[in-house]
Order: sequence, then structure tokens, then C-alpha cells
Amino acid sequence: MKLSPSIEALIDGLRHLPGVGPKSAQRMTLHLLERDRDGAQQIADAIENALAKVANCSRCRNFTELTVCEICADPKRDPATLCVVEAPADVMAIEHSGGFRGHYYVLMGHLSPIDGIGPEQLGLDTLCERFAGGDIKEVILATNPTVEGEATAYYISQRAKDAAVVVSRIAHGVPLGGELEYTDSSTLAHALSGRTVVDQ
Amino acid sequence: MKLSPSIEALIDGLRHLPGVGPKSAQRMTLHLLERDRDGAQQIADAIENALAKVANCSRCRNFTELTVCEICADPKRDPATLCVVEAPADVMAIEHSGGFRGHYYVLMGHLSPIDGIGPEQLGLDTLCERFAGGDIKEVILATNPTVEGEATAYYISQRAKDAAVVVSRIAHGVPLGGELEYTDSSTLAHALSGRTVVDQ
Repeated sequence: MKLSPSIEALIDGLRHLPGVGPKSAQRMTLHLLERDRDGAQQIADAIENALAKVANCSRCRNFTELTVCEICADPKRDPATLCVVEAPADVMAIEHSGGFRGHYYVLMGHLSPIDGIGPEQLGLDTLCERFAGGDIKEVILATNPTVEGEATAYYISQRAKDAAVVVSRIAHGVPLGGELEYTDSSTLAHALSGRTVVDQ
Repeated sequence: MKLSPSIEALIDGLRHLPGVGPKSAQRMTLHLLERDRDGAQQIADAIENALAKVANCSRCRNFTELTVCEICADPKRDPATLCVVEAPADVMAIEHSGGFRGHYYVLMGHLSPIDGIGPEQLGLDTLCERFAGGDIKEVILATNPTVEGEATAYYISQRAKDAAVVVSRIAHGVPLGGELEYTDSSTLAHALSGRTVVDQ
């Protein structure tokens, strides 16, 4: 059966969303057309608006509508501590935890030579210039604990050492509320090797 | 942390999609902005296009861009057999099965007095006029086997009987590939009461 071309186009369009396959896209399309045309219009408007306005912060590369994002522009935050993350979602997660008052640098990816993503694509040249500038005292590497994330962290740590910047890596170990029995062995190995002395 | 208002607006917008909560909406938003801006534009365009063009067929109420949909306009299909379904997705499912060559009537819902959905909202007055017109020989009730679907089917069957139209209900029973042991008892009861004599 041939569907109406506009409906087909909307089903195809919605498949660009992560985790949405043909069945979900069809269900979403029919839901919007049957029951939520106002919501559909709101989605279209929000996409147009976000595409037009959202760009990258000139300092930290995070998403913002301004030239310099709110975090970089906040005078109460400490610019001498720089936390390097892979993606805007990581900034959101760390901000949500409330435990960090420094600045960020968002790589928008990780080193992946196979995909043609080298230091320039991640803005690491700009980052190294800032290391050399001397304003940064400590760089906290908060890339993901994956092969690519570790490689990226290693690359940055070498550049930071060259510029005599203190380098730290966020702790990897057993999550709070987690049980040793159900923790995977790599995480346990990390937790053991990263053990800290208890003050008595 | 305050996000950029355009990003917040897009996250809120995407929550209009069925099955999408705040976390998924955030993930979809960041995915579109980080990795698939063309896809995002495609979604916005497809929504605008579908909202502008897709309306209901004047005969069967199914979604179409034409005045009369392709199925209703197809001369090879039998207009004397009318299959009544609740939603466009049901038409797609039946068409996909390939076992039906008649016409459809799409209610776009089911009788639900609590929600203010009566016969007029489902276009049942128009349907009854067509029964009275005498062109329809058989009406197949393919509403869902839920309380509301059954009530809707019962209402239509009464109107069809008044107009001397043959009424049938699709069979409910054990699905192909299903096992008796794991079939719920209501379905099994339906399967037993709806048993057919085997030709020998």
C-alpha cells in the first residue's frame, strides 16, 4: 500500500531521531497528525529556532545562543580550573551534580583517526594555546572511560604537561549505591588501583 | 544550570512525541544539534508539509492529501464490502496483510462518552447514511477488542442491521505462532467460542 507522500516524508524524517525505527516513526507520525497537530507545529518551530540560533561558545565550544556562553561569562566561576568533556550532555550532567565551579572545554567528540577526527576537529590547538597562555592552573580530564576517551585524555595530558599545567583525571570506580558483586571487573580493577588513603 | 532557551524549547517540543520523556528528548535534541542538523531541518520541513497537506478523505476519513483517498478511488476495489477500523494505523496493518480488497471507514477513535466522543465525532451519521444508500452489502467490524472498541462495534452493528446490511466481526483467537499455554484466558475463551467446523 502506498501511503500519502507527505506522511511517508514525515516518517522518514522522524527516523533521524536517535533510537527511532520505522515502527516508532510511523506511530509518532500518526499520533501527531491524529491527536497533536499543535504539538507538531511546536516541534517544527523549535527545530527551526534552535538551528538558527544555537551555535558554539567561542571559548568553551559548548552550545549557546550567545558569543560567549553563560558559564564562561559567569564572574563567580573559576577560570583557572578547566574541565574537558566530550559533549554538551556531559556538561549538563556535571552541572547537575553541582560539584564543579570552574570552566569547561567541550571537545564535541573524541580522537578517532579512522573517522578523520584529529586534534584540529576537537579544537585541541586552541586548547593548547590556552595552556600556553598561563591562565589555566589545572585541567580536569573528564572524557569517557572508553578507548577513544582515554586516548583523547592522554593526548591532552601530554600537551598540558608541556605547558606545566596540573593534569587530573576524574575518578573511576564503584558507583554509589552499586554493589561490588555486580560491578564489572574493569571497573573493580580501576576502583582498586585508584584507592585513596583514609585519614584516621 | 540554565540551558539555552532554544535548546530548552526543542527539548519541550520533542516531548510531544509519544513515548519520549525528558531524558530521551534531551538526547534527541543534542544528537540533532551535534550530529544531524540536516536531519533536523528535514524533520521540520516534513512536519510543516504534512500539517499543510494531510487531511481526511471525504469518503473514508483516512488520512490523504487528495479529496478522495487512493483506496476509495481505486476502481479495482470492491465498494460493497466496508471494513470499519479505529485508526489509520489499522488500515496500514490490514493493507500490509494483503488479505482485503474492499473499502475502509476510519472512525479516528472509538465511542467514549466520558471524553465526549459520541457517534457524531466518529462520523457514524455519515456511515449510517451510506448503509441506507444500499451500496454496501457487508460491513466488517475491525475495531479493537477492547471495551470501547466492542461498544463501538455493537453500536455500528445495530445501525447496519436496521439497514439490512450483513455485519461481520473479525475473528479473535490464538495468534499464528502463538502457544495455547501462553495465551491469555480471554483470548482462549474467544478462540473456543469462535471455533469453526472443519470441512472433511
